Amino acid sequence: MALFPEAEMAPCATFDEVFEAVAQGACDHGVVPVENSLAGSIHRNYDLLLQHDLYIVGEHNLRVSHCLIAHPGVRLEEIKRIYSHPQALAQCEHSLRALGRHIETIPAHDTAGSVRLIAERGERDAAAIASARAAKVYQMAILREGLEDEKNNYTRFIALGREPVTPQGEAKTSLVFAGRNEPGLLFRCLSAFALRNIDLSKIESRPVRGVPWEYFFYLDFIGSLAEERCQRALDQLREMATFVRVFGSYPRARAAWVEEE
Amino acid sequence: MALFPEAEMAPCATFDEVFEAVAQGACDHGVVPVENSLAGSIHRNYDLLLQHDLYIVGEHNLRVSHCLIAHPGVRLEEIKRIYSHPQALAQCEHSLRALGRHIETIPAHDTAGSVRLIAERGERDAAAIASARAAKVYQMAILREGLEDEKNNYTRFIALGREPVTPQGEAKTSLVFAGRNEPGLLFRCLSAFALRNIDLSKIESRPVRGVPWEYFFYLDFIGSLAEERCQRALDQLREMATFVRVFGSYPRARAAWVEEE
Repeated sequence: MALFPEAEMAPCATFDEVFEAVAQGACDHGVVPVENSLAGSIHRNYDLLLQHDLYIVGEHNLRVSHCLIAHPGVRLEEIKRIYSHPQALAQCEHSLRALGRHIETIPAHDTAGSVRLIAERGERDAAAIASARAAKVYQMAILREGLEDEKNNYTRFIALGREPVTPQGEAKTSLVFAGRNEPGLLFRCLSAFALRNIDLSKIESRPVRGVPWEYFFYLDFIGSLAEERCQRALDQLREMATFVRVFGSYPRARAAWVEEE
Repeated sequence: MALFPEAEMAPCATFDEVFEAVAQGACDHGVVPVENSLAGSIHRNYDLLLQHDLYIVGEHNLRVSHCLIAHPGVRLEEIKRIYSHPQALAQCEHSLRALGRHIETIPAHDTAGSVRLIAERGERDAAAIASARAAKVYQMAILREGLEDEKNNYTRFIALGREPVTPQGEAKTSLVFAGRNEPGLLFRCLSAFALRNIDLSKIESRPVRGVPWEYFFYLDFIGSLAEERCQRALDQLREMATFVRVFGSYPRARAAWVEEE
């Protein structure tokens, strides 16, 4: 993984398990997705951030690229069935149709698992849709790359740690706040950043569960807690909002929507 | 459907088809999800709103409730396999584990389709996870209700039309705007609403594709285009933003997170 190239991997079945593993010390860091360019924010992981005393220590934008994967030596013409997660199958709908003939699509629990399935069963007339990495892991061949209909498909991941970091160079800071529901609340809270020329890179409102018409606001800004103006902005925010939780400052990743070479 | 109780239904395979059907006059209205309380906004449908000349004419908050469905007369103890969309299976993970014994889960293309599958194949030792409506459609029985681990699981739907409506009573208005990327842009744009005591019910930023560091802001406010103060707020917004598109005013639905009786 780009965020921790040297790390030993410990796969978890659920996002909850990732947070637990880091919180309880079984792992030093965890990596979870928080946002996809097509599907939007993954609120579940924002909820888990609120439930745990962990920090965001990094971010990474991963381009989602679906490959058509089969046994080595198998040609496209021999494929009769394609296995994958229904979401991946849906994201490749037009590309699959453009193959020119009907191929049966079969849903699977996950994308990498569908590669394992055709590998283990020795199904030479089937293919799977998954990442290039999955093809490598199961020693299978890539028949087609970039099968996704929407090429601007990115997922933003965050890295979790038990201790905050102090980023060098360009930094981003993530936080959540809430306040008494009244017109202008958000406006007053944002003045803390606008009056100090602090640039925002994300804002999203989310209803507070069980409290009608009250909202959490998730906000990312460009800057680090090590900067005095950012500290002053947070002081003002704490004055205007009833709840503020800072998830940490971390090195800023390049924009997800800048095309890779 | 709660939004159009009298309407004849015309199911579409994709969201694109819903927008096309309304835009080309094949249907009077379309209904698409825009937001889920766990998964977040469905950006795809905001993109489609931008691509079509349609209006939002209504909204509805639907509680997502997963049922365990089997053939009538079948008891829970007889179930050996459960079919559903992997996302529904994941959302019921803890409930399924609480059944006390291992039941194989098998991924399917969609939830309702998994009910049809066990109905058509006559699989009496299998169940499906889907809505109560799907059980009714295929004349199957509900073994368990509210199987979802997270009970606060709501999806917000919007109704689309070719003509705008003028809502009576409490109204909501949805729009999107963008502006030159500079600190304070959002703050200045929000002043249009804050200075007129107009309450916001949703705000979300989204990168403008292909233009690094520029954002669209999706915003809902409480009020109608028929009100002069709202018109004046939009005038000011147009002065501060470089792009504004109003999707329409419509009757406001009750809060999604208010528990139903």
